[in-house]
Amino acid sequence: MNLTQDDLQHLDARFRANLINSVTGYKPANLIGTISARGETNLAIFTSVVHLGANPPLIGFVQRPTGEVARHTLENILETGVYTINHVHVDFFARAHWTSAKFARGVSEFEKCGLMTEFIEGFAAPFVAESLIRLGVRFVEQIPVKLNGTVLVVGEIVAVIAPDNAVSKNGSVDLNAVGDVAVSGLDTYHRVAQIETLPYAKPENLPDF
Amino acid sequence: MNLTQDDLQHLDARFRANLINSVTGYKPANLIGTISARGETNLAIFTSVVHLGANPPLIGFVQRPTGEVARHTLENILETGVYTINHVHVDFFARAHWTSAKFARGVSEFEKCGLMTEFIEGFAAPFVAESLIRLGVRFVEQIPVKLNGTVLVVGEIVAVIAPDNAVSKNGSVDLNAVGDVAVSGLDTYHRVAQIETLPYAKPENLPDF
Repeated sequence: MNLTQDDLQHLDARFRANLINSVTGYKPANLIGTISARGETNLAIFTSVVHLGANPPLIGFVQRPTGEVARHTLENILETGVYTINHVHVDFFARAHWTSAKFARGVSEFEKCGLMTEFIEGFAAPFVAESLIRLGVRFVEQIPVKLNGTVLVVGEIVAVIAPDNAVSKNGSVDLNAVGDVAVSGLDTYHRVAQIETLPYAKPENLPDF
Repeated sequence: MNLTQDDLQHLDARFRANLINSVTGYKPANLIGTISARGETNLAIFTSVVHLGANPPLIGFVQRPTGEVARHTLENILETGVYTINHVHVDFFARAHWTSAKFARGVSEFEKCGLMTEFIEGFAAPFVAESLIRLGVRFVEQIPVKLNGTVLVVGEIVAVIAPDNAVSKNGSVDLNAVGDVAVSGLDTYHRVAQIETLPYAKPENLPDF
């Protein structure tokens, strides 16, 4: 398959959506938990969470311009200033996927999809009880992408909750051990198994390729 | 492990870098190929490529404020206006990893890391010959994240090159079939195997969870 810009413009819309959502490679699966000022919880799966910096610890996700579930997430974040990011594991990926259904405002995906809320002292947004790797995040800014109205939502990580035995001495999290899934396209879930950890790459240690 | 904002600020810098780079979940592995106005090729691995929209087909990646390899990539993109995104597979992930070494400006990671350039008619930036899923991208804009000087680089996909048998009738790409790897943290590579493709989630079809 060898598609030009002109070919891409004339593809069937559904085919293009599947293709373009696939070509970034494997994506993380995260549930973003929020609560409205009125106290209504919301949960939505996002595959666009991205690392933005370690100090301060900044994390981003992409908010599409349309889509009910997505908008509820950003609306709640703007109301309360906080949200949670919860990894999705092999044992509940289907429940996580169904949070993408367009439920009405005020309907909690936690209840509909069989996932439990968990709150921690002093933090308004709900965590997912079933998730082993969880972040509390404080909203920093939203940055619009001019060409299509998409928004990069930037937050600072203010809490990290993880099992002690999943974090190595150097700080790396063992995502295999907690059963994290990866996603391709809009709808396909994958299990993941480590091949190798490679050394920090310095020119003077370059292997003979 | 239960880290507060205060804990996070006082972590050892290396521990924090490994931790915060792990907590987004699995990441895609992509090589970004560029060429300077003087004709020097450059290749660098990025794990921050993210889907921004299907119509027009927009793709982003995060450019850190520091790091020689990364800067060469953005410098070249600003000079020529184009770049390539090439998926990393199981059979050459180590060579891809070594592109992250801080080689001097003008040194080509293609040559140093044993990867081959491939050019297509009418497009200046080099593709990676060893990669099966490859995108030609035209630079659209760079969007700064105020808090840490990181930049979201936005581009429009203007070419998609993939094996016919890796693209399904609905447009989804079979990333397992081409041997794409996933990444965790800064240095750990994984193989990936499909569990399941789930249906488009509509509230009226919600399973009984």
